[in-house]
Amino acid sequence: MIETPYLLFLGDAPDPLAAKVAQGIKDWRPDFALGQLRMEGCRADMKLPDMTLAEAKAAGAKTLVIGVANRGGVISAAWKKVLIAALEEGFDLASGLHNLLRDEPDLKAVAEATGRKLHDVRVPSVKYPIANGEKRTGKRCLAVGTDCSVGKMYTALCMEREMLARGMKASFRATGQTGILITGGGVPLDAVIADFMAGSVEWLTPDNDPDHWDLIEGQGSLFHVSYSGVTMALIHGGQPDALILSHEPTRSHMRGLPGYDLPSLEAVRDMALTLARVANPACKVVGISVNTAALDDDAALACCAEIEARMGLPTVDPFRHGAGRLVDALEAM
Amino acid sequence: MIETPYLLFLGDAPDPLAAKVAQGIKDWRPDFALGQLRMEGCRADMKLPDMTLAEAKAAGAKTLVIGVANRGGVISAAWKKVLIAALEEGFDLASGLHNLLRDEPDLKAVAEATGRKLHDVRVPSVKYPIANGEKRTGKRCLAVGTDCSVGKMYTALCMEREMLARGMKASFRATGQTGILITGGGVPLDAVIADFMAGSVEWLTPDNDPDHWDLIEGQGSLFHVSYSGVTMALIHGGQPDALILSHEPTRSHMRGLPGYDLPSLEAVRDMALTLARVANPACKVVGISVNTAALDDDAALACCAEIEARMGLPTVDPFRHGAGRLVDALEAM
Repeated sequence: MIETPYLLFLGDAPDPLAAKVAQGIKDWRPDFALGQLRMEGCRADMKLPDMTLAEAKAAGAKTLVIGVANRGGVISAAWKKVLIAALEEGFDLASGLHNLLRDEPDLKAVAEATGRKLHDVRVPSVKYPIANGEKRTGKRCLAVGTDCSVGKMYTALCMEREMLARGMKASFRATGQTGILITGGGVPLDAVIADFMAGSVEWLTPDNDPDHWDLIEGQGSLFHVSYSGVTMALIHGGQPDALILSHEPTRSHMRGLPGYDLPSLEAVRDMALTLARVANPACKVVGISVNTAALDDDAALACCAEIEARMGLPTVDPFRHGAGRLVDALEAM
Repeated sequence: MIETPYLLFLGDAPDPLAAKVAQGIKDWRPDFALGQLRMEGCRADMKLPDMTLAEAKAAGAKTLVIGVANRGGVISAAWKKVLIAALEEGFDLASGLHNLLRDEPDLKAVAEATGRKLHDVRVPSVKYPIANGEKRTGKRCLAVGTDCSVGKMYTALCMEREMLARGMKASFRATGQTGILITGGGVPLDAVIADFMAGSVEWLTPDNDPDHWDLIEGQGSLFHVSYSGVTMALIHGGQPDALILSHEPTRSHMRGLPGYDLPSLEAVRDMALTLARVANPACKVVGISVNTAALDDDAALACCAEIEARMGLPTVDPFRHGAGRLVDALEAM
C-alpha cells in the first residue's frame, strides 16, 4: 500500500479538471492531503498549503502523489526535476499516469539508489478473465455520463457515504486511478487490454449479499468517441440494476473534442438503458446527478429542478446537495 | 514478415469456428496454405493435405501457423510438444493467440537454440494515439454483427476483392489476428489498451483519396457483453460512411454466452446507426451480409430474400453469392 500522508503534485495543470486526481483525494481522504506542490503556470488549486518538498517532508509527508493528468503525452523534463528531487528528499512517488514511473530510466535509477518506491496504480495487477455474462448476486449501480469528467466518480462516492450512513451495505468500486488512489483498490479500466475490459468489471463486482450495492465508478461516455468502448464495457460487465445519468450543464462541447456537441440526457438514457438491458433486463434509470460546480446556488437548484421536471427522475448535485434522493431511489427498488 | 508457405496447425480445435484463422488463410491466400496438422480430437478440417512436420518440411513449408484459438486460456502441454518439435524441425512459428509464444520460456529457449523466429501478431507493434474524432478524407465501410464470428471479416475481404476487380480504390483493414496473418499488417484490436482502441482504428484508416474505401474488419458485437467495447471503438474510431449488418441465421444464442439471445437485425441497425452518427452524421446502413454456411443453396437464397424483404436492404452471402450488390450500394453513395 501507498504510505500516507501525501504531498499532492499539481505540476503545470492547464486547468482545474486536469487535477481531478488531487481534488478527489482532497475531498474524500482529506487526512491524506497534507499540502500541494505547484509549478509555474499551474492553473489548479486544491486550497491546501503550498509546500516545498522540504517543508512537506518536515511536516511528515511520505509520498508525492501525482495529482494531475498528462493527456496521452509524456512525463516532461520540468516534471522530472521535481520528481527526482522528491525521491532524493525521501518521498515515495505514486502515479496513475499512462506513462509509468517505472518506465523512466532516470526515475527508476534514482528510486533504486535512494531505496524509494514507485507506485504505478495505472497498471493492472491482476490477470482478468473474459466476461462470461453470468448473473451475479447482489445489486449494482453505475453512473453513465453525457461526457467525460462530469462527476461520475463523485456521484458514486457520495452515494456510498450516504448509504453507509444509513447502515446500508455498499461498496464504492474504483475503475480509475483517482478512485484507486483514494480507496487502495480497484481496476484501472482504461489500461486494461480490450478483450478483458468487461471481464475486469465482472471481477471487480463479484457475487455479494442480496442487499449489497456496488457503486461502480463510471468512465467516459457512450457519446465520447475516444473512450466510448470503456463505457460500454462498464455497462455490459457491470450488469447494473440501476443507472444514474450524470451531466455537467455548462459544457459547450465534448471534452477534448471541439467538433462534438454533448448528447441530450434523453439520448444517454435511451442508449444506456437499451445496452444495459442486454446484460440485465431489469435495469432501470433511477436518477440524475448534475455537477453544478460552475453554477451559483440558485442556478444550481434551478438547473436540477428543470432537469427533474423534464426527465421525471430525482435530480440532484450529490456533492453539493447530498445524495439522499438518489439513495432513496435505490432503496425503493 | 512471416515466411511462406505455411503448415496450418489446427491442434485439438473443439469445433470448426475455433479454427477460423486457418480457414481465413486457406480461403484468402490459398497459395500460402500447403497443408494442415491436426491433433487427436480435432474437429476442424481445412480440406488440406494432413501432413506431419517432416512431410511439410520436405514439401517446402517454412512456418507453422497456429490456426486455432484457445479462448482466454493457456498454451497446453499437448500443443507445446508439437510446437517445440516444429522449431527443432526448422519451422518458424506464427501465432495470433493472446498467450504469446515469446512468453513461454521453453518455446523461447528452443527458438533461440535453433535460430527460429516466434511471430506474435497479437501484440501491437505501434504506440497508438488517443482518438481525436477529427473527420478524415476518403470513405470507410464497417461490418457490424448480430454476434461474434458471423462473417464480418469475410464480408470485408469479399468486398475488397470485388472492388479491386471493378477498378475501385479499396483496402481491407485488418483488426484481428487472422486478417493480420492474411494481409501482413493491421491492428490487433482486442489486444490494444482500452484508452487507445478508437485511436488505433483512426491510425489504421488514415486520410485517403476521396474515392478510396477502407473496408474495416469488424469485431465482436454491440450486443455481445464480453466484447462490445471493442465493437464500439470500431464504430467511433472508424467513423464509417457505410455500415453492413452481418448475421448468421442458425445461431441459437450469442457465441459463448448460453443465456443470451441474438438481437434482431433491426436492433443492431438502430443501435449501430445511432452510435455511428455520433462520429459521422452522414453514416448509412447500406446492406446486409448473411453467413449461410450452415444452409443448403435453396435455404441460403430464401434466407437472404426474406431478410431483404423485411429490412429493405440488399442482402447477400458475399462469400457464397458474391459481394457485387454490396459494392453496388457503396458505388451508389
